[in-house]
Amino acid sequence: MSRRITLNSDIGESFGAWTMGADDLIMPHIDCANVACGFHASDPLTMLKTVKLAKQHNVTIGAHPAYPDLVGFGRRHMALKADEVTALIQYQVGALQGICAGQKTTVSYVKPHGALYGDMLSDGQQFDAVCEAIAALQSDYDTSLPLMVMATPENDAWRSRAKKLDVELWFEGFADRSYDDNGQLRSRSCSDAVHDDNDAIYAQAEAFAKGRPIESVSGKSLQIEIDSLCVHGDNPKTIETVEKLRDIVRQAYE
Amino acid sequence: MSRRITLNSDIGESFGAWTMGADDLIMPHIDCANVACGFHASDPLTMLKTVKLAKQHNVTIGAHPAYPDLVGFGRRHMALKADEVTALIQYQVGALQGICAGQKTTVSYVKPHGALYGDMLSDGQQFDAVCEAIAALQSDYDTSLPLMVMATPENDAWRSRAKKLDVELWFEGFADRSYDDNGQLRSRSCSDAVHDDNDAIYAQAEAFAKGRPIESVSGKSLQIEIDSLCVHGDNPKTIETVEKLRDIVRQAYE
Amino acid sequence: MSRRITLNSDIGESFGAWTMGADDLIMPHIDCANVACGFHASDPLTMLKTVKLAKQHNVTIGAHPAYPDLVGFGRRHMALKADEVTALIQYQVGALQGICAGQKTTVSYVKPHGALYGDMLSDGQQFDAVCEAIAALQSDYDTSLPLMVMATPENDAWRSRAKKLDVELWFEGFADRSYDDNGQLRSRSCSDAVHDDNDAIYAQAEAFAKGRPIESVSGKSLQIEIDSLCVHGDNPKTIETVEKLRDIVRQAYE
Amino acid sequence: MSRRITLNSDIGESFGAWTMGADDLIMPHIDCANVACGFHASDPLTMLKTVKLAKQHNVTIGAHPAYPDLVGFGRRHMALKADEVTALIQYQVGALQGICAGQKTTVSYVKPHGALYGDMLSDGQQFDAVCEAIAALQSDYDTSLPLMVMATPENDAWRSRAKKLDVELWFEGFADRSYDDNGQLRSRSCSDAVHDDNDAIYAQAEAFAKGRPIESVSGKSLQIEIDSLCVHGDNPKTIETVEKLRDIVRQAYE
Repeated sequence: MSRRITLNSDIGESFGAWTMGADDLIMPHIDCANVACGFHASDPLTMLKTVKLAKQHNVTIGAHPAYPDLVGFGRRHMALKADEVTALIQYQVGALQGICAGQKTTVSYVKPHGALYGDMLSDGQQFDAVCEAIAALQSDYDTSLPLMVMATPENDAWRSRAKKLDVELWFEGFADRSYDDNGQLRSRSCSDAVHDDNDAIYAQAEAFAKGRPIESVSGKSLQIEIDSLCVHGDNPKTIETVEKLRDIVRQAYE
Repeated sequence: MSRRITLNSDIGESFGAWTMGADDLIMPHIDCANVACGFHASDPLTMLKTVKLAKQHNVTIGAHPAYPDLVGFGRRHMALKADEVTALIQYQVGALQGICAGQKTTVSYVKPHGALYGDMLSDGQQFDAVCEAIAALQSDYDTSLPLMVMATPENDAWRSRAKKLDVELWFEGFADRSYDDNGQLRSRSCSDAVHDDNDAIYAQAEAFAKGRPIESVSGKSLQIEIDSLCVHGDNPKTIETVEKLRDIVRQAYE
Repeated sequence: MSRRITLNSDIGESFGAWTMGADDLIMPHIDCANVACGFHASDPLTMLKTVKLAKQHNVTIGAHPAYPDLVGFGRRHMALKADEVTALIQYQVGALQGICAGQKTTVSYVKPHGALYGDMLSDGQQFDAVCEAIAALQSDYDTSLPLMVMATPENDAWRSRAKKLDVELWFEGFADRSYDDNGQLRSRSCSDAVHDDNDAIYAQAEAFAKGRPIESVSGKSLQIEIDSLCVHGDNPKTIETVEKLRDIVRQAYE
Repeated sequence: MSRRITLNSDIGESFGAWTMGADDLIMPHIDCANVACGFHASDPLTMLKTVKLAKQHNVTIGAHPAYPDLVGFGRRHMALKADEVTALIQYQVGALQGICAGQKTTVSYVKPHGALYGDMLSDGQQFDAVCEAIAALQSDYDTSLPLMVMATPENDAWRSRAKKLDVELWFEGFADRSYDDNGQLRSRSCSDAVHDDNDAIYAQAEAFAKGRPIESVSGKSLQIEIDSLCVHGDNPKTIETVEKLRDIVRQAYE
């Protein structure tokens, strides 16, 4: 049975005088914006402009918290303790919510960025710290504050773990990345980590959108349920791909 | 007619491995904690510990936003544009509210720190930017979010200006600082900027608390209404002064 | 009598994952690279790459120190004391020299950036602080470490002031900016601050290069001696202008 | 045969308005100051004051470079690539040398701080990156720039590895820490990681100073040669211990 999945994208990753991404080009085509919160990218004024742009296009705003590592763009593993993770999640989600409140909108979900995202998914203690940080925040929001994580064949186990901590999960997939037989993303150190071929990208997106299995690098059939497809667009050419992915996802649902 | 005034103090100004202040000693004696938000001092974990301590002592939590200048402790003037000020206020108040929400408490007021406080009071455009930032945030709070500013003989003019922007003001005074004839704080570059004598400090506090005029450096009588008295305590000796000030303020009201 | 003037450009202003400028395109055409030192832009690894690129093109390396304000790109005035300025100049020049030493090259001059550059030229105390910082450093270098400042009709007065502090000055001019009658750069808030017309740019460069007067916005003749022309290039079109300016400067000398 | 060993201490770890350590108390008693370079602690002005103080007491100045992690005081592991390590070492050593040059003194050795120190000693690739960074710098110095590392029974192997990269090592020991049977420092997670008893501290220092074996936690005899003893002093009581250690070390040599 096909289900409606959303397109999400990392947004608002400029910093001060430095521009990154083509937010104004991609914003019209996505459903959910993972907005940088000032620790790996962005700053208060950039966040303000980003939130205005998202609101203008009716895009759902998510917080994209990260390790405190601007120069490393939040991509470098840092050995933080659980209470440090809890605090930095609440700080960053709150900071974005402050900016959102000023624009009469709100943070609707949380997707950790970069190394924090990776560590959360490979270290149960960090996962729990993230969930507890979010669960404690939810009283301040009218609805729940879902956590976006990577979809794998083990979605149910993650969903149970998060539910015990009172956190809803949104699972995301990638159309342009290949998957190992175990359902994890193929490491970027492998030459076949990224689909070069647009047809392969579109086929994988369609499979996700229609709830059908995708194919691993070795040809194994993988059933991975996703709620959202992560897309990237920083120039006119990649924006075209995003538009096509949006059409595939919508048509699959209709 | 005497009125109940509060004691407020700058709190949570440690940073990472560096300790500043004696928060655990002063917290039992104050009503309002101006909590640093990570731009001039503090960090997410320090803010978490600070909010827990404030809550434990039933101390009202205020955001203490500042210019982005850790090395200068937010004391150095920086030439920021109005929209930069708006964004950094909302970012910092929101960040502290994120930490507060995790502890089931809330930010109740805003007091800008250091050079931002000074610039706000000497530059109408910055004052308006601060007010607009706070006014826009208030929809996210159950009650209004007052702005704490320095009390002078011109309270009414400031109150009117803020009210037009939908912001309530709280006026604070200083018991240990001398005032110029115009009702402004005596510059710290003057040798008589700070009262050395505890009796002078207590007398000034009592005058404030009882709604009576205080005396300027030249002996002029100054009628300055305050809602709160700003106190400092970073060692056992200054904590004793804070306790005495608390007693003076309470007795004046009873 | 015509004299050989150099082309200088602000270089190495990327930061972490963010790219700025087209350093690889402009480097072949300039003589002097003002290399960012990590306070307004750049980071150690970016500086390492920048120094390698400059060395490869035999470009003279200058330190481009700034206020500690990454998010504001060093363009915002900050109220620093003289000893803070001294220390940050020596820190940044030394840091770049550390990177240079690793590549068997050296820092050859200093040009303060942005608001520090402006404050240095409008506040004698800051100018002296910069000079003293550089003078004290010179013992570590085989030759003097000149300070690059803006050329005006008052070059001689500045030269004398710096010489008393044992610092040599290099004066720079701008071909694309218009000048007020007093020989200062026309404020960017004026619509005629920048020459739109390439012919005007080239004419002004030629006048500088041949030691002839340039024309102020009101048509007044201004005799301004320069040692270097500041150029900017961040895309193929502006790089073409830089190439043309280089040819003008060389032909004037031959 | 007894040999002259030095006392070294981490110095200049204040940051902006925050004070750490009692540098003025400990400086008269040590030989070598490991001076923070602004990445885990300190700032340009603090470094300037620290270098002046060290020079006044004829203390040899070493650079104490660290990961870029002020809030974590450089104690948190960060996954940096080798070229990032090279660049940050050269940047920080150079920055301190800039400050030193302004005071007519010089950086004489390098001791990495915190997690960088630990990673360097547990990851050969990082060790080599540190050595290569230092080796490349040495041309800028009149003498070699030794690297200070932890002494273990395997000093010779480390010495050979560093020598191939043209770097001299200085080995340091700890009088107040216990050692495992393999000659490594006992982990701080163990209750017996630190000697509580001053007599044990002094005995271990004397053994080091006289070139005699020390005793491991299980009573095993460990022959560990050291060039320097690392001491800490942040209050009058610990300063007394430092004075006593200085006397022990001097008497052992005489």
